[in-house]
Amino acid sequence: MAAAVSDRIATLSAGGGLVFGCDYNPEQWDRSVWPEDVRLMQQAGVGLVAINIFGWSSINPSRGVWDFSALDEIIGLLHAAGIRINLGTGTASPAPWLTAAHPEILPVGEDGTVFHPGGRQAYCPSSPIFRDYAAEVVTRVVERYGDHPAVSLWHVSNELGCHNALCYCTTSAAAFRGWLRERYDDDLDALNRAWGTTFWSQRYSSFDDIDVPAQALSLRNPGQILDFHRFSSDEQLALYRAEAAILRERSDVPVTTNFMVTAHIRNLDYWTWAGDMDVIANDHYLDRRLDDPRGELSFAADLTRGLAGGAPWLLMETSTGAVNWQPYNLAKAPGELRRNIAAHVARGADGICFFQWRASTQGAEKYHTALVPHAGEDSDQWREVVELGGLLDRLGEVAGTRVEADAAVLFSWESWWAIENEGRPSEGVTYLGQLHAAHAALSDAGITTDVVRPGADLDGYRLIVVPALHLITDDEAAVIARAVENGAVALITFQSGIVDEQDRVRTGGYPGAFRDLLGIRSEEFAPLVPGQTVALTDGSTASVWSERFKTTDAEVVAAFADGPAAGGPALTRRTAGAGEAWFLATQPSRDDYRALIARLAETAGVAPIPGATREIEIVRRSNGTDSYLFVINHGDSDAEISLVGHDLVTDAPATGLVPAGAVRIIKEDV
Amino acid sequence: MAAAVSDRIATLSAGGGLVFGCDYNPEQWDRSVWPEDVRLMQQAGVGLVAINIFGWSSINPSRGVWDFSALDEIIGLLHAAGIRINLGTGTASPAPWLTAAHPEILPVGEDGTVFHPGGRQAYCPSSPIFRDYAAEVVTRVVERYGDHPAVSLWHVSNELGCHNALCYCTTSAAAFRGWLRERYDDDLDALNRAWGTTFWSQRYSSFDDIDVPAQALSLRNPGQILDFHRFSSDEQLALYRAEAAILRERSDVPVTTNFMVTAHIRNLDYWTWAGDMDVIANDHYLDRRLDDPRGELSFAADLTRGLAGGAPWLLMETSTGAVNWQPYNLAKAPGELRRNIAAHVARGADGICFFQWRASTQGAEKYHTALVPHAGEDSDQWREVVELGGLLDRLGEVAGTRVEADAAVLFSWESWWAIENEGRPSEGVTYLGQLHAAHAALSDAGITTDVVRPGADLDGYRLIVVPALHLITDDEAAVIARAVENGAVALITFQSGIVDEQDRVRTGGYPGAFRDLLGIRSEEFAPLVPGQTVALTDGSTASVWSERFKTTDAEVVAAFADGPAAGGPALTRRTAGAGEAWFLATQPSRDDYRALIARLAETAGVAPIPGATREIEIVRRSNGTDSYLFVINHGDSDAEISLVGHDLVTDAPATGLVPAGAVRIIKEDV
Amino acid sequence: MAAAVSDRIATLSAGGGLVFGCDYNPEQWDRSVWPEDVRLMQQAGVGLVAINIFGWSSINPSRGVWDFSALDEIIGLLHAAGIRINLGTGTASPAPWLTAAHPEILPVGEDGTVFHPGGRQAYCPSSPIFRDYAAEVVTRVVERYGDHPAVSLWHVSNELGCHNALCYCTTSAAAFRGWLRERYDDDLDALNRAWGTTFWSQRYSSFDDIDVPAQALSLRNPGQILDFHRFSSDEQLALYRAEAAILRERSDVPVTTNFMVTAHIRNLDYWTWAGDMDVIANDHYLDRRLDDPRGELSFAADLTRGLAGGAPWLLMETSTGAVNWQPYNLAKAPGELRRNIAAHVARGADGICFFQWRASTQGAEKYHTALVPHAGEDSDQWREVVELGGLLDRLGEVAGTRVEADAAVLFSWESWWAIENEGRPSEGVTYLGQLHAAHAALSDAGITTDVVRPGADLDGYRLIVVPALHLITDDEAAVIARAVENGAVALITFQSGIVDEQDRVRTGGYPGAFRDLLGIRSEEFAPLVPGQTVALTDGSTASVWSERFKTTDAEVVAAFADGPAAGGPALTRRTAGAGEAWFLATQPSRDDYRALIARLAETAGVAPIPGATREIEIVRRSNGTDSYLFVINHGDSDAEISLVGHDLVTDAPATGLVPAGAVRIIKEDV
Repeated sequence: MAAAVSDRIATLSAGGGLVFGCDYNPEQWDRSVWPEDVRLMQQAGVGLVAINIFGWSSINPSRGVWDFSALDEIIGLLHAAGIRINLGTGTASPAPWLTAAHPEILPVGEDGTVFHPGGRQAYCPSSPIFRDYAAEVVTRVVERYGDHPAVSLWHVSNELGCHNALCYCTTSAAAFRGWLRERYDDDLDALNRAWGTTFWSQRYSSFDDIDVPAQALSLRNPGQILDFHRFSSDEQLALYRAEAAILRERSDVPVTTNFMVTAHIRNLDYWTWAGDMDVIANDHYLDRRLDDPRGELSFAADLTRGLAGGAPWLLMETSTGAVNWQPYNLAKAPGELRRNIAAHVARGADGICFFQWRASTQGAEKYHTALVPHAGEDSDQWREVVELGGLLDRLGEVAGTRVEADAAVLFSWESWWAIENEGRPSEGVTYLGQLHAAHAALSDAGITTDVVRPGADLDGYRLIVVPALHLITDDEAAVIARAVENGAVALITFQSGIVDEQDRVRTGGYPGAFRDLLGIRSEEFAPLVPGQTVALTDGSTASVWSERFKTTDAEVVAAFADGPAAGGPALTRRTAGAGEAWFLATQPSRDDYRALIARLAETAGVAPIPGATREIEIVRRSNGTDSYLFVINHGDSDAEISLVGHDLVTDAPATGLVPAGAVRIIKEDV
Repeated sequence: MAAAVSDRIATLSAGGGLVFGCDYNPEQWDRSVWPEDVRLMQQAGVGLVAINIFGWSSINPSRGVWDFSALDEIIGLLHAAGIRINLGTGTASPAPWLTAAHPEILPVGEDGTVFHPGGRQAYCPSSPIFRDYAAEVVTRVVERYGDHPAVSLWHVSNELGCHNALCYCTTSAAAFRGWLRERYDDDLDALNRAWGTTFWSQRYSSFDDIDVPAQALSLRNPGQILDFHRFSSDEQLALYRAEAAILRERSDVPVTTNFMVTAHIRNLDYWTWAGDMDVIANDHYLDRRLDDPRGELSFAADLTRGLAGGAPWLLMETSTGAVNWQPYNLAKAPGELRRNIAAHVARGADGICFFQWRASTQGAEKYHTALVPHAGEDSDQWREVVELGGLLDRLGEVAGTRVEADAAVLFSWESWWAIENEGRPSEGVTYLGQLHAAHAALSDAGITTDVVRPGADLDGYRLIVVPALHLITDDEAAVIARAVENGAVALITFQSGIVDEQDRVRTGGYPGAFRDLLGIRSEEFAPLVPGQTVALTDGSTASVWSERFKTTDAEVVAAFADGPAAGGPALTRRTAGAGEAWFLATQPSRDDYRALIARLAETAGVAPIPGATREIEIVRRSNGTDSYLFVINHGDSDAEISLVGHDLVTDAPATGLVPAGAVRIIKEDV
Repeated sequence: MAAAVSDRIATLSAGGGLVFGCDYNPEQWDRSVWPEDVRLMQQAGVGLVAINIFGWSSINPSRGVWDFSALDEIIGLLHAAGIRINLGTGTASPAPWLTAAHPEILPVGEDGTVFHPGGRQAYCPSSPIFRDYAAEVVTRVVERYGDHPAVSLWHVSNELGCHNALCYCTTSAAAFRGWLRERYDDDLDALNRAWGTTFWSQRYSSFDDIDVPAQALSLRNPGQILDFHRFSSDEQLALYRAEAAILRERSDVPVTTNFMVTAHIRNLDYWTWAGDMDVIANDHYLDRRLDDPRGELSFAADLTRGLAGGAPWLLMETSTGAVNWQPYNLAKAPGELRRNIAAHVARGADGICFFQWRASTQGAEKYHTALVPHAGEDSDQWREVVELGGLLDRLGEVAGTRVEADAAVLFSWESWWAIENEGRPSEGVTYLGQLHAAHAALSDAGITTDVVRPGADLDGYRLIVVPALHLITDDEAAVIARAVENGAVALITFQSGIVDEQDRVRTGGYPGAFRDLLGIRSEEFAPLVPGQTVALTDGSTASVWSERFKTTDAEVVAAFADGPAAGGPALTRRTAGAGEAWFLATQPSRDDYRALIARLAETAGVAPIPGATREIEIVRRSNGTDSYLFVINHGDSDAEISLVGHDLVTDAPATGLVPAGAVRIIKEDV
């Protein structure tokens, strides 16, 4: 698929290089502004423009009324200017007349709250009424524009499931029952077993008695909650598939939708979605609520590349500066935009698109920055955008190259749902927290990493990191064991392998799925409270978790020196076949985690990229012939790194100097 | 109006001096207590008593049943004792039979929660059923007592909108649609433009499709929210007007209702209400949740005087000690009651009334202090009340005098709603936070300040402070520009002038409405996170906000020395006509803000009151002939201030000594 | 009753000694596991097993369908092994078919949220539909197993009211009205007086207009809330009584249900329940959210013994290690399980049962520890359980002995509800906070304490502590006064005696009910904010509260040296008859509180147990002949204590050494 995808992305860029694009909402502006918009797009080199994303109330202002005149004009203008179009199906939010006529399509919260229109996505994803009306919109759009030469990509809906992923209305409940009948093959006993309904008198005697896991008085059935997550992801995917089917029947243009691989979205299992996308596209914004926003960016970019199977992908939305939906919407620091964009491209993006073209003056996102700021053309922000366009243009030759990694991190949305279910051992254990810690340790150590799905082929990976992979099937666990047998080094961390696909605890000693591989047998969790740290006998410190376990066939590399598991092992190693399986029962400090990864990498024969540190992010993209080294100095000090080649940023021979805050993209001498 | 208002207030006081009053709920007590109450009122000098505020269930205990016997008796007792009556219309909370018979009048929250009876104000303000029944109550009351010689003031309902200002029921939604049709002259396109409904597919094709901005899944349309605030304030005002019309048709006694100009109430735009009041009355309680409760008191008192157009006003409710509705209901410190009351009178109050006469032993406010405490007559609290009565009596000659101010602060409820709307740049920016900071700086610098409405005539003000006036019309902005041209010094702070009356961002560079006046052009907001401070090149420190802007026709007085806008201007000055326009792009520390105000005051030729500091509050009231200096020492140290005249507190010639915690009210020698 | 209860408990233990038991949910496991379970039970000495607690959906899987086959088999297996059965009535949670067929039985929250099935207790306690179906379940169970020789105890429902105590549905509202008619003898005026409905226009003209105190816009009527608490406790008790009546009609086996005397449950007034229990049984888990979890355990155990009238009781549920429903479910430290169990037995438990036998692999509590952990038999946890079984066996002779105490603490659920009602002086005053502080001071001083109900006979108690007993009747207060007259020393702390049984403040000076006894007259509360401390003139420090009061007939023992009541008394003493009445107007630091208690104990002639400290918990159980000293070293250091006798823990002669973390249970030499 990879080559094909590269080709597909290449068609989205005027020059066949990297895509530079944006969302464009011309309906917010007077027609007199439109030609000005096109002029500025050309000035900056914007080559791909997404339109009609929220077009419903414009093209279908009331029931049965259709008005494509404005859209015709916009498409004409863009086409005349040689700008390609990423055409939205227009179904991202229903027009007000629809929800007014059919309030029964409004989504309902866990506690029964009906969510009203006024924002966006005010519909139940399972609603047949919504689906029918949306299908008509898509059909009208594709019939009108499916053959238009400027239309280069179909943009189904928008950020599907961003807000309405979990709906608890009666329509959703009926759909859930239908989904369960299918999953369990109409076998109620199978469902009762899967959910463990003998607990708390929950055994069902009829599928008709099953409800969504709405708010209850106490902890709820975790199996029901887990299946509701699976159902909810599938319902959103079904919305995509329904639209994609309509489009593909009538158009040959590639189809996609924008994913949200980012810290605060967790309801969509994109592993099950990726195969339906002709191009993987992701929306990503720095989340300033995190301790390490740019670390999250790097992880998300690697995961997006994983969804693309290693092939290039599109950053479909990002911001030039502050967003508007966080508590404190910080401006980007000088050079931060360039560093962010470089990190995305370094990790496989072949296109960078922004939300949005021109900053709105009204509506909920009027304080979201854009390519053209409120201040207009005569502004530092616009000048930075033009510069960025130039850089992307110079980087054109990078398009189609790939990131090579010897290390892999396993990631699973199902595990995320399972590990953060109700009634868990510790609220201090968050799935992303563990993933981010592991990914940061790898990055700090200069190890480029793929992010892969449990069960994925691990051939070629010499270092495999499995952080807190709570839910895993036996077959998926076996893939890891085989990789170790074949010579890989695997680091498996606490809370991995605890439950099977039904969220059923494996008995006989944790971590059930990995007990034999690791040569350990764990008896009791001993989580730490916030602020609590423990010391390990190797001098490292750790937090979040400890555990009482014994080795059965492993070497104790470090033990807990204090804390609730004092005296017991903390880090163990077992040689298995040609490889090694390590277990880590706590979360080391950032530096200690980096040191551990460095040690494992050395054992595994994985060479770090020279010069990479916590502050200096370095990633290489290459193809059979050429290679490009992306060097990003996130720190406050200049760095000296050995670089040989041509710097595409300065368009000059590379020197070793990477000034504080600077980006260097070196076409390396072969 | 001013003179007339003074006269009106004078009629409320037995001696024509300051009013000393209270709420009185005799129905909570056995009849045997009533004569005792009257005796104690006379002992303390209480001259105005508010009754029947929550009378509905007493005078109209069930549908169609009316019983005025107790009220007749109370009125007779008070009248016989020469005590004047502030007669409540009795509609503040419906009787239980009404909500039981008509549950559809219950108010509904944003998330659909129906609010039950059990507290107070359990009605939808737009309910025609409630309005009809309330009208009958008012009519019965005025017909019975409208000519009674003791009745001196009509007290419409009570704290209108304190709890039920924002109702999201279907009745409210219908009323909202009606209000919108009127506001937009039945022009749906005008509404669509005003709300920017092209964003997120929100364009309406019928007024019937519009709903209240109830809970949504995402950020909501800010224009809809802003108009809903306007509507909600208007609906409460309509309740007032309906009752006032009934009263005025049948009685010549002045009509008012008690405002809540205080930190935690923001839903009523009292600028639009003030003209309907025969006397401005305010309820104020120290809010111990604030960092500076008494600073808020001073600001609220100045704002109340602004609502009265500079004329005297009534403090209609306050407490002798702790209230019962804050998390920690602190007792007042020794002398604090006197200091609070002195601050109110200093800033224009011609009357001080308390909630309530006798501390309840039951009900939700039984731990709210009162004039007569639970301990009864033999108590320090009662003795302090009697002393306070004596002081108010001695201060009688102050009645009718006015506060003179050369400085004005602009304040707007619409701006409050707009700046704290959803999706804003920073939750760290609160409107009151900015107002309080500016007012404290003025007060600390000894500058007495009026608080005025945007658009108000600014003639006579030499110093004009415009803190965070986010929403302002072009015409209102022009008034400020003209004042500067005519010689005033204006300080305009960040986030001012950003949006127009439709909450639409002015493009071309912030702050749109003041860009030319200030000679600056701002491109990007750069808010600070909590706890973050920045240094300015003039040595001051600041927090909350910074901004990236350039001067176009202004002098940089201070620049940001660090932080996200480092190197750019922070404080600028532009000479415009005979005046100066300053822009402040951050919130200085309290001392630095004071120093800045002192500098501006000097430039403006506004002389501070000698001796005023952060701890020593000094305000002057005067008329053509006499002047009274109120000196309040809030600090822990004695102060020496040059005072010449007669001290009405000690009833002795003034000395310069103002002991820690003491109040001095000096009738100044001419 | 005591002797009878001891006998009853003795029948639950195989050997007539202490009971060792657990909850057993065999339906969660394959039949092949059951014989293994029985074998392990015998290994550990488990003698009493609770089954069928959540049996409804198993024995009555759909309407009208009954299936007792599995239960028959389980009972047979246990009986054959000589294990006694604590038979659940099976009604703890309705089967899914019932709530699906009758969604009107679902409980409703304060804000109208309908609570869905998915957890447990998803029923309105007042629902006649639920009650009818539950009665049929109980009837079927008792008819089938009432005469079975293994059935030794009836376990009605489970943790009644744990989640569904407060239901706000219309069925509950109707039941509440019925309950009110009965309470007030159909006299509406009496209700209006009791609730003080003249406040805020709340006077009722018909019982039909009264509602539950659902969510309101403002503070609600506290009298209504208090009565709703009483009603809600009574409704849960009615559920118990209905089942108990069915059981007793058909079976001679003792009947009980498991109480939840623990920090986070406050809706059941167990003083009114205790008389209906044939054996008092309590569920207790360490609450790690508290500052002092094991202090709470000791208090709860003493209170449970108080509910048993001093007789032995059963710990019906506890955990071997972590639970799963707290934010951070900490493992027990080494030896902590033994220390916890020893504390329960020391304070009167004659049986220790665990939730649950075998750790679940599914359902909401799969991470709750159990006797048989996930790791299985070969685990430290299981070995510790077997050891514990041995210890309990050796302690058999303790059964039937009693704790002797010269001190009593008064405790009242009604006071808890009243003092934490809305609109109170300070949210910093929590009832349990005050109880725990007083109990810890007593325990730290080595004073063993009974916890008794207001109004209980106080004969024999020389030291009586009355912490924050906000609501008390005159008669109950008189009992305390008489005890003092007769020679006891009473310590009454702030907020005691403020209101009567109608939550009506007693006027004339706080604390009304104790004013004369204490010889003080308090005028004003002066609560402290969190983190604020005040100094007393005796050198102690205190927090939470201060108060402005005067002595009328008492000696000032210590005054406030600073803070809002500086200069006024803080601690007073009045000699009354043969005793002394002390008033404490603040909460001393833990050490200062201990010192105060030690002083009072000395005055009262109550001798502390030698060696007891904050870290060394010591309690004695005895009968006419033998006495047993329980010594628990909670500290990190070894202790030396004078002990003479035989140590049942080590089965060796006692030495004085009590190692850090160790337990010693000494059969004392006479």
